[in-house]
Amino acid sequence: MGEIPDSHPRKASLLARAKLTEAASQGLLAESALIAHGRGEAFDYLLGERTSDSASQAIRETAARLLKAEISVISLNGNTTVLAGEQAIRAAAIIGCPVEVNIYYRTPERMENLISTLENLRLNVANQDPPLGWDDSQWPDIVNSVEILGGDADGRIEGLEGPRSICSSRGIEVADAVLVPLEDGDRCEALVALGKQVLVIDLNPLSRTARMAHVTIVDEVSRAMTELCSALVEEPEISQWDNGQALRDALGIMAQASNQIPS
Amino acid sequence: MGEIPDSHPRKASLLARAKLTEAASQGLLAESALIAHGRGEAFDYLLGERTSDSASQAIRETAARLLKAEISVISLNGNTTVLAGEQAIRAAAIIGCPVEVNIYYRTPERMENLISTLENLRLNVANQDPPLGWDDSQWPDIVNSVEILGGDADGRIEGLEGPRSICSSRGIEVADAVLVPLEDGDRCEALVALGKQVLVIDLNPLSRTARMAHVTIVDEVSRAMTELCSALVEEPEISQWDNGQALRDALGIMAQASNQIPS
Repeated sequence: MGEIPDSHPRKASLLARAKLTEAASQGLLAESALIAHGRGEAFDYLLGERTSDSASQAIRETAARLLKAEISVISLNGNTTVLAGEQAIRAAAIIGCPVEVNIYYRTPERMENLISTLENLRLNVANQDPPLGWDDSQWPDIVNSVEILGGDADGRIEGLEGPRSICSSRGIEVADAVLVPLEDGDRCEALVALGKQVLVIDLNPLSRTARMAHVTIVDEVSRAMTELCSALVEEPEISQWDNGQALRDALGIMAQASNQIPS
Repeated sequence: MGEIPDSHPRKASLLARAKLTEAASQGLLAESALIAHGRGEAFDYLLGERTSDSASQAIRETAARLLKAEISVISLNGNTTVLAGEQAIRAAAIIGCPVEVNIYYRTPERMENLISTLENLRLNVANQDPPLGWDDSQWPDIVNSVEILGGDADGRIEGLEGPRSICSSRGIEVADAVLVPLEDGDRCEALVALGKQVLVIDLNPLSRTARMAHVTIVDEVSRAMTELCSALVEEPEISQWDNGQALRDALGIMAQASNQIPS
């Protein structure tokens, strides 16, 4: 892909696509990952490639619940690591929780690859400015203490079978609130059945994951995770949350896209 | 990917995905092809993964215009060859026109690969039953006479630059009606500017291609091409065609998907 001019209206989308095709060629992604990304692109296109007010509210609610939980964890798959790995580390540092690499098509190579990618991203984040009001001198230590779980593979998600049930005993297994961007329906269902707060980022408001989660952020993952970092710093309170309304809001925006057709 | 049971409600979609990941690993596709397919999957999901009545009308209109034209051609890229190559050969046999491999990211290897894939598919089609009412004994000769253009690369699409302007002097360059499933916006625009009838299959009713074409079939390419073969045999007549209405129909169906959310 050639250089994309700053003025290109869809620059962010094209950069995300370039990042993912590069990551795919490096073996970071399952073979269906690019197709999954393309599905997301279509829904984001209908959303106008911006975070809606409704999605912003879902992001605040997610921030509140992650901060309030006894044990929170941010679960990361290949696409999320590539598109929003830095923001995930930053969010985990603000919350004071681990991230956990948890992938659907688990191979030792991809796990190692993703964990070392995140270790490098953690170094970047430690060198960035801290959130407003945070102590500059402590930030690097806070970031460097964010644990990257998943390699241990000593926990189980009850209700699932085979490699898809594997998780960390110090992460997803014990957490009472799990942020799972881009999760598949089966795993989302199992996590809900275990009584955990399940907070998801999913561009398809009709997906099983989107409908089953407690809070669904219908937004592109890198935009949502960036805004989540800001929301966390504001320490919002948990609200009465109507997740069906959040899904209907997103579908309403997508439906309005039909006004774009000249008659 | 494991065996998909016949009862799976999304079997066709999962099979298409498996075909494409296989073709990608064989080097038949550009690296962005899987992402493009994923975008299509999302729009097809919103369409309910079925051919709408409105799309059926667009298919009939396309059939009428391909039959009526002086010189027709069916342009094929990687994804179309993989998903609907057989149907394209069959349609070309019924029309009595060539197919032309024309790809956006042109390399000699991919061109050769796609042309030999189509040569094999042509053998399959020659062994299939002819359309109802056609002579069994002549069908294999009719199919085997379908030319597979594109390798010659001796024509140009005026208005485009670089490798993307390359076409066949006996195909797209001289044709007055071109069926271009899954075309990109720039090329669609150039073909329209040259005064050709541009007939497209595009799952995104908001894409530049969908809006610029003379007839837009908003449908999944293998379903649409299968139905096109049936429509061609019925020899429909050209109508007064309102392509904006076809696009609004598709968006209306996608908007109705919002009724699926429980309140």
